[in-house]
Amino acid sequence: MAVRPVVVLAGGVGAARFLSGLVQVVPPEQLTVIVNTGDDRDFFGLRVCPDLDIITYTLAGRVQRETGWGLAGDTFHCLEALRRLRGDAWFQLGDQDLATHIQRSARLREGASLTEVTREITAAFGLELELLPMTEAEAPTRLLRRDREPSDFEEYLVRDGAPDDVEAVDLSAAAAAAPAPGVLEALAAAEILLICPSNPVVSIGTIRAVQGVEARLRERRDAVAVSPIIGGRPVKGPADRLLRAVGAEVSAQGVAKLYQPIAKAIVIDRVDAGLAPAIEALGLGVRVTETLMKDTRVCRQLADLTLKFAQGSE
Amino acid sequence: MAVRPVVVLAGGVGAARFLSGLVQVVPPEQLTVIVNTGDDRDFFGLRVCPDLDIITYTLAGRVQRETGWGLAGDTFHCLEALRRLRGDAWFQLGDQDLATHIQRSARLREGASLTEVTREITAAFGLELELLPMTEAEAPTRLLRRDREPSDFEEYLVRDGAPDDVEAVDLSAAAAAAPAPGVLEALAAAEILLICPSNPVVSIGTIRAVQGVEARLRERRDAVAVSPIIGGRPVKGPADRLLRAVGAEVSAQGVAKLYQPIAKAIVIDRVDAGLAPAIEALGLGVRVTETLMKDTRVCRQLADLTLKFAQGSE
Repeated sequence: MAVRPVVVLAGGVGAARFLSGLVQVVPPEQLTVIVNTGDDRDFFGLRVCPDLDIITYTLAGRVQRETGWGLAGDTFHCLEALRRLRGDAWFQLGDQDLATHIQRSARLREGASLTEVTREITAAFGLELELLPMTEAEAPTRLLRRDREPSDFEEYLVRDGAPDDVEAVDLSAAAAAAPAPGVLEALAAAEILLICPSNPVVSIGTIRAVQGVEARLRERRDAVAVSPIIGGRPVKGPADRLLRAVGAEVSAQGVAKLYQPIAKAIVIDRVDAGLAPAIEALGLGVRVTETLMKDTRVCRQLADLTLKFAQGSE
Repeated sequence: MAVRPVVVLAGGVGAARFLSGLVQVVPPEQLTVIVNTGDDRDFFGLRVCPDLDIITYTLAGRVQRETGWGLAGDTFHCLEALRRLRGDAWFQLGDQDLATHIQRSARLREGASLTEVTREITAAFGLELELLPMTEAEAPTRLLRRDREPSDFEEYLVRDGAPDDVEAVDLSAAAAAAPAPGVLEALAAAEILLICPSNPVVSIGTIRAVQGVEARLRERRDAVAVSPIIGGRPVKGPADRLLRAVGAEVSAQGVAKLYQPIAKAIVIDRVDAGLAPAIEALGLGVRVTETLMKDTRVCRQLADLTLKFAQGSE
């Protein structure tokens, strides 16, 4: 397989929006995206890979825009019927969305790898970029929580509504997992390495935990990241709660510190311009721009600036 | 588990209609139905049991009346999405119907038996009768066909439209299968044994092929059957083609001959009254009535007459 010169580390919604801008400024056939699978799990025997699907649906122009996940206009007839048959159908799975999980599960049981199935599904959705799961092993992120049982990420986020009770993040499953075929090769061969505005702890942190990935990233130490924290708050999701759980500061500077061992620069929002000197003191380059990806124009502009920054031409 | 005094052998649509009448004249908690599973198969990794589901949906008042299978008002959004992901989505599975198959498959993978899962699903649909799969083993009926590959029953019926090309019916998988727990016990303890107006070859014939079933039925030789053939034609389905494939006559008399070793009597339609003497000459009792189950009244009346005939009070 030909090496694709631009390699991106990605989580879910924020990554998908960033990538929707990136494919406007990089030919998609030059892109490899290494995707977090630490939030994957089985629901009713069906393998659900939230981040892979969010990216696929977004880039195919099929995502439900209001939420950032699921398919636009999807119905929930199967899920409603499942709720009459079992008590634990709390995860939102639309009827068309279910087809993806049914197909993925069927192919995995037939012996296809997650990498192969992902390639098949992205091709069926008309995508030309390469989505690589970080690993083909099950590598669920575990959240240790105050006064309740540990849970996986979807239980925490969707079932429980992401309360502020996470005491520690257990990435040991990812740390025991071999990278999927192509992941280390992509990281070695990349001309440009970008980190999406994703959760630094449970999306990018999980990818970094996979065997061999962090070492490869540290050897290069040339990634350009986009901060998912704007004005001390995540745009979406529980990144604030999870940054605190790992003892990091909930700010673009806190994110920069986490990325210091692997990144050469970070893109932060205008509202955080005042943090630039402190981040530069960490040895990281800084670019300040609009990072709240509220429309196509911002997505494209942010991706373009990040790419040029990484190329050294901006 | 308490023995239920009325035991019925059943296939799909015809059986479901007959049973919808029977539950009006027998308290459902006194009924055990032994159901053909020779048409079961996996679609996209989901276990589909057509006859169990047709009976469940019908007795729950949820069946799509026009076809006799599937759920009334169901949508097909998942299937349409699946068709964009794979080429072989020819089987009709509605969104709500899929929930049944997802739940069954999940429970089977968790280690539940088909008998247990069937009990759970029928309970969730509010049924009080007992549906027993004939076996918990995979026991697919194979049809040997002229000028093409052998196929399973759903491939023949749904994918190919049931052409007249069946040369032989291979029940060897059923013949190698152990009966599900409770099947032989129910057959031994039944006070009344009925055979639904189902396909004598691939529904009732498949149940009879399961290990130990035919011997138990022959010991008793007291079943009362309802002919699924009216005026030399099946009401629905390919019974004519399959009767010919096993060298049987496509008539109520041909059905009676097949049931002669296990039945004491048969209920036939008015249009077949002229066949009564020939059937009586086989040693079987005959009752003539309206058997085309076009409405609730006929279903109930047919079930009532069949039951009373079996009880010897008619």
